[in-house]
Amino acid sequence: MMFERIKYNVYNLIRDDDENNLAGNIFDSIIVGLIIINIIQVVLDTFKLPPYAVMISNIIEVVSVIVFTIEYLLRLWVATYMYPNMSHFKARIKYALSFMALVDLVAILPFYIPFIIPIDLRVLRALRVIRLFRLLKINRYTDSLHAISDVFRRKASQLLSSILVVFILMLIASVLMFNIENAAQPDKFDNIFDAFWWAIATFTTVGYGDIYPVTPAGKLLSSVIAFLGIGLVAVPTGIISSGFVENIENKKDRSEEEQKYCPYCGKQLK
Amino acid sequence: MMFERIKYNVYNLIRDDDENNLAGNIFDSIIVGLIIINIIQVVLDTFKLPPYAVMISNIIEVVSVIVFTIEYLLRLWVATYMYPNMSHFKARIKYALSFMALVDLVAILPFYIPFIIPIDLRVLRALRVIRLFRLLKINRYTDSLHAISDVFRRKASQLLSSILVVFILMLIASVLMFNIENAAQPDKFDNIFDAFWWAIATFTTVGYGDIYPVTPAGKLLSSVIAFLGIGLVAVPTGIISSGFVENIENKKDRSEEEQKYCPYCGKQLK
Amino acid sequence: MMFERIKYNVYNLIRDDDENNLAGNIFDSIIVGLIIINIIQVVLDTFKLPPYAVMISNIIEVVSVIVFTIEYLLRLWVATYMYPNMSHFKARIKYALSFMALVDLVAILPFYIPFIIPIDLRVLRALRVIRLFRLLKINRYTDSLHAISDVFRRKASQLLSSILVVFILMLIASVLMFNIENAAQPDKFDNIFDAFWWAIATFTTVGYGDIYPVTPAGKLLSSVIAFLGIGLVAVPTGIISSGFVENIENKKDRSEEEQKYCPYCGKQLK
Amino acid sequence: MMFERIKYNVYNLIRDDDENNLAGNIFDSIIVGLIIINIIQVVLDTFKLPPYAVMISNIIEVVSVIVFTIEYLLRLWVATYMYPNMSHFKARIKYALSFMALVDLVAILPFYIPFIIPIDLRVLRALRVIRLFRLLKINRYTDSLHAISDVFRRKASQLLSSILVVFILMLIASVLMFNIENAAQPDKFDNIFDAFWWAIATFTTVGYGDIYPVTPAGKLLSSVIAFLGIGLVAVPTGIISSGFVENIENKKDRSEEEQKYCPYCGKQLK
Repeated sequence: MMFERIKYNVYNLIRDDDENNLAGNIFDSIIVGLIIINIIQVVLDTFKLPPYAVMISNIIEVVSVIVFTIEYLLRLWVATYMYPNMSHFKARIKYALSFMALVDLVAILPFYIPFIIPIDLRVLRALRVIRLFRLLKINRYTDSLHAISDVFRRKASQLLSSILVVFILMLIASVLMFNIENAAQPDKFDNIFDAFWWAIATFTTVGYGDIYPVTPAGKLLSSVIAFLGIGLVAVPTGIISSGFVENIENKKDRSEEEQKYCPYCGKQLK
Repeated sequence: MMFERIKYNVYNLIRDDDENNLAGNIFDSIIVGLIIINIIQVVLDTFKLPPYAVMISNIIEVVSVIVFTIEYLLRLWVATYMYPNMSHFKARIKYALSFMALVDLVAILPFYIPFIIPIDLRVLRALRVIRLFRLLKINRYTDSLHAISDVFRRKASQLLSSILVVFILMLIASVLMFNIENAAQPDKFDNIFDAFWWAIATFTTVGYGDIYPVTPAGKLLSSVIAFLGIGLVAVPTGIISSGFVENIENKKDRSEEEQKYCPYCGKQLK
Repeated sequence: MMFERIKYNVYNLIRDDDENNLAGNIFDSIIVGLIIINIIQVVLDTFKLPPYAVMISNIIEVVSVIVFTIEYLLRLWVATYMYPNMSHFKARIKYALSFMALVDLVAILPFYIPFIIPIDLRVLRALRVIRLFRLLKINRYTDSLHAISDVFRRKASQLLSSILVVFILMLIASVLMFNIENAAQPDKFDNIFDAFWWAIATFTTVGYGDIYPVTPAGKLLSSVIAFLGIGLVAVPTGIISSGFVENIENKKDRSEEEQKYCPYCGKQLK
Repeated sequence: MMFERIKYNVYNLIRDDDENNLAGNIFDSIIVGLIIINIIQVVLDTFKLPPYAVMISNIIEVVSVIVFTIEYLLRLWVATYMYPNMSHFKARIKYALSFMALVDLVAILPFYIPFIIPIDLRVLRALRVIRLFRLLKINRYTDSLHAISDVFRRKASQLLSSILVVFILMLIASVLMFNIENAAQPDKFDNIFDAFWWAIATFTTVGYGDIYPVTPAGKLLSSVIAFLGIGLVAVPTGIISSGFVENIENKKDRSEEEQKYCPYCGKQLK
């Protein structure tokens, strides 16, 4: 009973959807503060630091990871309140597989890996920044982000289809371009991955300029790809655009529903 | 009779629109598997392979082409079921000219060309990747792809018109740019095709950086072109966007049509 | 009377809006053919040609300009039929100032300038390509082009406003960037026009890579400008997009107008 | 009384919303003229000028700043008429914090700073160009600019949310890219700011080509970022697009509201 009460209090402390909870807000502020300290530390780590600063940086990291680990375990523990209709085990699995829980896991795991497998990858440690996604839970932007992610969810299938088409076109373009340009620029178009890198730079119109065709056939293919790129970029824009327009229409429809009348009997239609 | 029955079974095996056909699904999986093996092989072919790998690669290619050729001929044979109102000959011609049949033909033909004309073009063989388009027939994405291609079909005329305008503008820009920059950069702007290559890089905003104007007049023209480029890229985006909005409107209209009965007098609302 | 009849026949021959006129269609085909020959000639002129080819090219040019000049004068002559309510003089001035008449004039004038002022500018002669715009009058694309140009006309004021804002922002960015980068790269950012060239490459996201900031302050400004660029490019896209959606809505409204009923008396509202 | 009258006349002279005021229009023209002279001067200052031209330039600057300072103080003085319901002090503070007043202040302040703190920053003086924003008050474009800024205001929250997401993604990408590429290109990816500069060039698809990944892992990350960039650029375009469509819908709704009378029974249709 007592135990259950502590658990419930912990749940109220760390839940995200409660704005009027003072203790919860303080807790959130501490976590956000710690995230920002971590970001500054990751940024500073990229400069050459004096030994004492490296030590401070290490201490911050250890403290952060401990706090984030405890937070993660607590969230897992109280996940049973989030999905009350499920068994305790299922609720925790479901929470552990949610986007935010995975973000938290990816952010703390790299610290523990070297204890198990003796590798030291700085790149892995940089994964801490992924924790930044947590900032999206700050209440101020929640409504707008929901509207945006709602559009993406409703249009997911169409967006994925257009990405599939783009991917197939890029693969075809890469293979053709490799075969066209390999003879003229064997160092630049050395294998299919180089050609794919070119395809991405061209399709997205980034065009760094590190790789481009020099043969007439290659330039012709590149031109076709660049134009297809524009056309296919217009598709997601059109899809997302129509998603936002749909949002507006739905809102209007709901507000208009009272104004319909039957032309025969004149009565108001639902 | 017996013959006709085999033909009908073959048709049921290879048709694309039947989801509940076990044998058909197995057949589809084999073809998709073979396509993926081919893609991996095309990718690996771009690396320097040891002799035994080259031999394996050649065997895969021969087997694939044989399978795909048989499949192509079978599809041609049973095409009469797809267009039952046509004569057998007309139905097969019609099928042979469909997008998917042409894709299949382009993918197998390069293998046979060297037997007839003694050339060995690796580029031609790379055309096998075009077969990737077949993946678009996988059922999962069919609806979304239909929605997208439907928008393109309805707006085809407007899209083609805007492409025509872009093409004319690019041609004019190329000729002017060639005459402006040729004196200052005779090696870069050597002929009109170089200038056209610049126009494409600028209009599509790819901007590789391999060719750009250096004279004040050239820069002025380039600026105008870059801005026109943005303006004209906005047009297809706008057209496609409105196409998707139109889809939503039509769906709404249709779903509204079903409810068109007055709940009080029961009369149908037109 | 006789003279007036010839004039009327000429008008019917060269007017653009009549599809069922055989003589008119033949005339159009000849003009379009001559334009295409001119384009080929302009393209070939950019290569080093043998003397006899230069001679043929010159003959083609002289013949073309004569034909186009006669056509221009005839159009001016019969312009009185296009604007029957105006005086002859006013009608001709009005026609001469129309887009297509100006295109025609710009295309033939460069040929005559060297006779008056003794200069020989190849660039001016290249203006012949502007005649390409005439291809837009081919009937096939007329409807779609009308729809597109209609959107531009209706939204002209909003588009111009957004261009004005972009221009002011680019000018401000150029002046600031020049003052920031001039000390670090005196050869690249030599004067304000170099900075403006950078601003255009950044705003339009072309990014050739011939000029970019190297100082931290310059990179910060460049980042802000690149993001503003994306934001402001989204504006014309949004405006044009809404223009096309408006087209659809208007069409729907017109087709729906019969379905409105008064809720009190049940009568159909016009 | 007399004093109040002068103040009211000054207010009428410098207010922006009155089109039929001759004296006001002359005043506006003088200010716009002075702004344009200043722009030309800022542009010319970037070239090496002979001593007498430098002197003229200095005189123009002193005169301009004096005129703009007087104008600024006058506007502050008469701001009480703009917000009649506020106390004099509050009204002036409110005006001083408006966008246009801040633009005016930023444009004149750099001239006075060297008198207080002994620094001479040409960059600061270049801030004069910010005055260009004043051109936006010219009546011709007011309506369209209102429509555009109205869309931005209504969609501000959604736009800011998408910028927040982009910013977080760019920060994560930068940290990862720095750790991936630092070993391979220690001079190019020297610290996190270099990596952030790369992230901006990639997300905005500018792609200058001064910095890009060379390792396979870096290229993979860059590809993902470039595609996310396109996806996330589609979001503001979609938001702004739907904003403009909403404008049209609202206008239609309002224009429909006036016609809501049944022509048969005369009753008002709700």
